Amino acid sequence: MSETVAVIPGDGIGHEVVPAALEVLDSVADVEFVHVEAGDAVAERTGDPLPAETLEAVTDADATLFGATGETSADVILPLRDAVDSFVNVRPARTYPGVDAVQPETDLVILRENTEGVYAGIENRLSADVSTLTRLVTQSASRRFAEFACEYVESNGLDGFTIAHKNNVMRVTDGLFVDTVREVAAERGVDADDAYMDAMATHLAMDPGQYDVIVCPNLAGDMLSDLAAGLVGGLGLLPSANVGAERGIFEPVHGCAPDIAGEGIANPTATILSAAMLLEFLGADAAARDVRTAVESTLADGPRTPDLGGTATTDEVAAAVVDRLPEG
Amino acid sequence: MSETVAVIPGDGIGHEVVPAALEVLDSVADVEFVHVEAGDAVAERTGDPLPAETLEAVTDADATLFGATGETSADVILPLRDAVDSFVNVRPARTYPGVDAVQPETDLVILRENTEGVYAGIENRLSADVSTLTRLVTQSASRRFAEFACEYVESNGLDGFTIAHKNNVMRVTDGLFVDTVREVAAERGVDADDAYMDAMATHLAMDPGQYDVIVCPNLAGDMLSDLAAGLVGGLGLLPSANVGAERGIFEPVHGCAPDIAGEGIANPTATILSAAMLLEFLGADAAARDVRTAVESTLADGPRTPDLGGTATTDEVAAAVVDRLPEG
Ligand SMILES: CC(C)[C@H](C(=O)O)[C@@H](O)C(=O)O
Ligand SMILES: CC(C)[C@H](C(=O)O)[C@@H](O)C(=O)O
Repeated sequence: MSETVAVIPGDGIGHEVVPAALEVLDSVADVEFVHVEAGDAVAERTGDPLPAETLEAVTDADATLFGATGETSADVILPLRDAVDSFVNVRPARTYPGVDAVQPETDLVILRENTEGVYAGIENRLSADVSTLTRLVTQSASRRFAEFACEYVESNGLDGFTIAHKNNVMRVTDGLFVDTVREVAAERGVDADDAYMDAMATHLAMDPGQYDVIVCPNLAGDMLSDLAAGLVGGLGLLPSANVGAERGIFEPVHGCAPDIAGEGIANPTATILSAAMLLEFLGADAAARDVRTAVESTLADGPRTPDLGGTATTDEVAAAVVDRLPEG
Repeated sequence: MSETVAVIPGDGIGHEVVPAALEVLDSVADVEFVHVEAGDAVAERTGDPLPAETLEAVTDADATLFGATGETSADVILPLRDAVDSFVNVRPARTYPGVDAVQPETDLVILRENTEGVYAGIENRLSADVSTLTRLVTQSASRRFAEFACEYVESNGLDGFTIAHKNNVMRVTDGLFVDTVREVAAERGVDADDAYMDAMATHLAMDPGQYDVIVCPNLAGDMLSDLAAGLVGGLGLLPSANVGAERGIFEPVHGCAPDIAGEGIANPTATILSAAMLLEFLGADAAARDVRTAVESTLADGPRTPDLGGTATTDEVAAAVVDRLPEG
């Protein structure tokens, strides 16, 4: 494999966790990195949080590793998701032995529709008093997304998924979403349960172990994945993948953490695990497995950053992960 | 006080917890009950989950005590909320000594905008492929809601609230909501913090003690209050109030629980606490306080239903609460 990976550290701790993940990536794969900028800092300098050069690098690359951005996040990540036509956001949330968690039984994946819903970006101020947003749900996007979800379930040897939605209130739009996902699941022989997204929030808080794969519209996925992050011990551990047919963007679920930026103590785990998802996307399954195993081993008895109760630096954790990789 | 209260048990355990709460209400206040029907059972019999007679009773009454309905819930509760122009849904979530909770430090109130957002009910199937929902946010509704929130904070001796929203994505609509709420808070001298609703889901799961009052749009409130329910030990404990200028509807946050309906073991606490909110709404503050104190005392060392690890029946819990009321 010699693929091109665009690299966007972004802002704040992005500049710490991304280099850490690159060190790991470099140890297991032959990848060419293209370094580009996005976020608050470049916006301050140039007026544009997402320079044309960055957008181009991302659409030219086979995959992108993204750190985190600040205030300008929505101006950066939403256009990037669009640019690579990433129609699904894959967000695994699990606990690790020895890492404190509100709900230690959590081990699930959220598959979030990544192109429409309230994220379609159609808003209007109709008058001084009235504003509207058009929530868009199409059968075609729901179908493509559901096909991915079914493949995900099949290729991971699972039985099915649970659809989270609000089709009792959003009858036409979430109605279309749920009906389409159910239809595709039936065609594929995949089990499809469903639950109202509010009820699922209660269930997740009390007994997340009952869920394996949650399939949902864009904003529901945004909420439910951050809730899952809270249950497993914080955002420092959660990777994510924005997956399109040809390209992908891989990013930790956490933000740029201005409170600890510059101290070199940010937890690089989420970004390293995002790099593992990137490897898998590029077909380097064995390397992805090796990285995950090394991360698990490091979490179990290696150095830890302060968010996990340790005193290690970002670099020390990355070095420990690299140390635990099999000899190349 | 001799006020008229419409009573809608609804379906399932509604027929158990509502009579239990009426017993408590009857012991502390002079209220005339008007019994009416809504929900799945009446829909099956008459084709209409919300008979005209019920709607009329609710709009004629000073307040309504609502139990829970099944499949037809949205067809019942949404028109009822509209009918009494309840522009805010008040949802307190707290833990009680001796009751197991995922996050024992939880003690907060969610104030949910109750008239618009995605609940405005404007949906269209534009083509075989495309469906849309119009999310509505008006300055006038946001302002009325914010004024209530400020009064709530002031009359409870608190400093301020935290606005939950997604104005980085829903820039125009949640932008208008947040700006308006902030404006009103500034006019009133009430502190207004804010957080993205996804980030708040993480914070709530990990450290709910940091929030007192959360102020948010309709669907955010739906999710966040069910999340809070999960943190305090389940839906059996959460009351709610749909508050309008003149009328209110008071209902437990839980559903009609078909799995245990008919067994007489449903936890009546949420409905009894909803009755306490009803008393407060009618100006019977002392009676409301007495009911709450009796409920707390019962939870601490009285009989418990199976959901809280006990073996008591619904009626035994209600009788214990009545027993612990001060002599009338
Ligand atoms: C930054 C923001 C636009 C983004 C989203 O809402 O998708 C973030 O919350 C996420 O979940 O990746
Ligand atoms: C039944 C449903 C329409 C309702 C809502 O979404 O408001 C319920 O979830 C609630 O929170 O009271």
